[in-house]
Amino acid sequence: MIKINENYLKLQASYLFSDIAKRVAAFQQAHPDKNVIRLGIGDVTRALPKACIEAFHTAVDDMAQDKTFRGYGPEQGYAFLREKIAEHDFKARGAKISPDEIFISDGAKCDTGNIQEIFANDIRVAIPDPVYPVYLDTNIMAGRTDIVYLESTAQNSFIPDLPKTPADLIYLCFPNNPTGATITKAGLKTWVEYARSNKSLILFDAAYEAFIRDDSLPHSIFEIEGARDVAIEFRSYSKTAGFTGTRCAYTVVPKDCMAYDNSGAAHLLHSLWNRRHTTKFNGVSYPVQRAAEAIYSQEGKKQTKALIDGYLANAALIRKEMTGLGFDCVGGDNSPYIWVNAKRDSWEFFDLLLNNAGVVCTPGAGFGKCGQGFIRISAFNSFENAEQAMKRIRDALA
Amino acid sequence: MIKINENYLKLQASYLFSDIAKRVAAFQQAHPDKNVIRLGIGDVTRALPKACIEAFHTAVDDMAQDKTFRGYGPEQGYAFLREKIAEHDFKARGAKISPDEIFISDGAKCDTGNIQEIFANDIRVAIPDPVYPVYLDTNIMAGRTDIVYLESTAQNSFIPDLPKTPADLIYLCFPNNPTGATITKAGLKTWVEYARSNKSLILFDAAYEAFIRDDSLPHSIFEIEGARDVAIEFRSYSKTAGFTGTRCAYTVVPKDCMAYDNSGAAHLLHSLWNRRHTTKFNGVSYPVQRAAEAIYSQEGKKQTKALIDGYLANAALIRKEMTGLGFDCVGGDNSPYIWVNAKRDSWEFFDLLLNNAGVVCTPGAGFGKCGQGFIRISAFNSFENAEQAMKRIRDALA
Repeated sequence: MIKINENYLKLQASYLFSDIAKRVAAFQQAHPDKNVIRLGIGDVTRALPKACIEAFHTAVDDMAQDKTFRGYGPEQGYAFLREKIAEHDFKARGAKISPDEIFISDGAKCDTGNIQEIFANDIRVAIPDPVYPVYLDTNIMAGRTDIVYLESTAQNSFIPDLPKTPADLIYLCFPNNPTGATITKAGLKTWVEYARSNKSLILFDAAYEAFIRDDSLPHSIFEIEGARDVAIEFRSYSKTAGFTGTRCAYTVVPKDCMAYDNSGAAHLLHSLWNRRHTTKFNGVSYPVQRAAEAIYSQEGKKQTKALIDGYLANAALIRKEMTGLGFDCVGGDNSPYIWVNAKRDSWEFFDLLLNNAGVVCTPGAGFGKCGQGFIRISAFNSFENAEQAMKRIRDALA
Repeated sequence: MIKINENYLKLQASYLFSDIAKRVAAFQQAHPDKNVIRLGIGDVTRALPKACIEAFHTAVDDMAQDKTFRGYGPEQGYAFLREKIAEHDFKARGAKISPDEIFISDGAKCDTGNIQEIFANDIRVAIPDPVYPVYLDTNIMAGRTDIVYLESTAQNSFIPDLPKTPADLIYLCFPNNPTGATITKAGLKTWVEYARSNKSLILFDAAYEAFIRDDSLPHSIFEIEGARDVAIEFRSYSKTAGFTGTRCAYTVVPKDCMAYDNSGAAHLLHSLWNRRHTTKFNGVSYPVQRAAEAIYSQEGKKQTKALIDGYLANAALIRKEMTGLGFDCVGGDNSPYIWVNAKRDSWEFFDLLLNNAGVVCTPGAGFGKCGQGFIRISAFNSFENAEQAMKRIRDALA
């Protein structure tokens, strides 16, 4: 008899975005003339950079001729892209990462979801709260039950304290989703040192690093000495260059990074991830990899910076306006997210903004226990819409 | 202490394609003037159909303007593609599959590799021999140890017999990789009936269905009555339309398909796979889905048929020539693969063809115990190269 993985029955159904959709639909039905402004979901809204479009077209043309056609590429990604990443995303910031430590994939959701497969089931996993739900759900699906939560609250300035009981696998995300909080080099160093002394591994999600404008902040955990032994990093072009619908990301597994078997023998995580990646994945679409490569051209860099500057201008406006209205905020300076202390129930404030301002945000309670009492406002929209949304919120709260 | 998934240590290192590469490199070094013809790896060589290229370009242009830009799409794929699939791949063949039973993905390797996650670990898994190694490896990674092999030999015309001990999860692939064997509707019906009476589930890999030219053969397991309750099917555009480097595939999970928990309660596999897919995957690149959609246009159908007719002409030639040389062959009529009884050790024949003819094939032993004594010749090349390869083999064996 075919039997199911019963761990799936332990998953909490995630009603967050469907609940939001339902409430927005009900509002729209009641007010068909009202134009709702969506600052909820973390999805980009602006066109791909011109450099990416041009490279994308050229690569599609390569696929149109037998002579230039590409079939299966290397599962780990083409050298042309891996070399650019090593050079521009790491070497340029003083982090030593070689091209063969980089695994190109079709998304950070896949990578952060799949990475847990290479670890044992009887490990203690530390997961932030509030958090992107994929970290927790994929561990529950695998049957891991020893989970500790890293609380991010106003008391610790939304940078979680080191776990009190030794954790084996630690998820960190900076700039953070959903709070928008950033971590300093000194702050990140305490985590690397913790991991080194506890033989832990840090999974560092840096999907939002392109939003960092404060030069003192680390873009990569590999800017921290000693991190190569104890960290894996996830990057994505989704927010960097508007690739949410184009799909390209990468994971960095340094060749110094070890994990242990029950006899205490050390194994290279690079080999394990390589085995996983080549067995269950067949590489990213060739034209998409060419489009991603163009991000690293001079034009591409200029254009992606302008793209993010646009979203950051929205973020600055939103943070200024919400602060002006008397709400404590974090994020929005080096992040597209503003985490707003609603001074009431998350959903109550969500309803207020929807019904009285026609603005959609995300209730913080949907990201975990510590998210209760907060909302997340996203800067992914046009400047006009961000301005309009803030005007409406001002009027609604007046 | 971070610990590894020790199941990875049980994996057999797959040296097949690296061994082949090493031997080919050694030969090339010894004969730098000799032009090696590759009929080994199952990768397409010809340009994408024109209809796909045009749709691909148009969709890239959509990404260039804010107004037509697409961010995250539905994880399960866009309706425009799922509806075409339901209509053309299923309804047109009398198989009732609705669009929401179709999950678009970036490859059948991912899907056939990931599907095992939704099942319990203590099930008996039946896997063909010879076989595409992903089925076995992904089950070993998950820790499944109760594996039975379905032997495909000349004695059973390369259609495995029903398992003698009840199997819970059964992998089948027709037209087969690597043997090229096909199954009749009557043959497939015995498997569906077996699954229904044993509460088993069939994972049907139909990645090569587009090569079927014999109208009596089933393209889909859902052409068989009762299959909706007991089968999941995998399809891919890789071989259908030359998408190996473009990446698009899909999986069909009918809403009648059940699996059981330890208490015997039935659960919809559609819900489990939907949970898995939406938690760990973020949809296929929008321009790629548009390119795939174009396969179903009138022009697209004509062009993909012509593409495959080209490979099938190679396959027919290879089979005719090898048969003429006194080798028993299967496949090559409704499949791009010809499975040749080498009448000696697989690797010995591989070396003979490489060294004396400059032709690369794949030694059957690399696909499992029952592959020993066979080689796989692939039709993926130009007609000129296939002709040249056959001439050289004729001369070498003369």
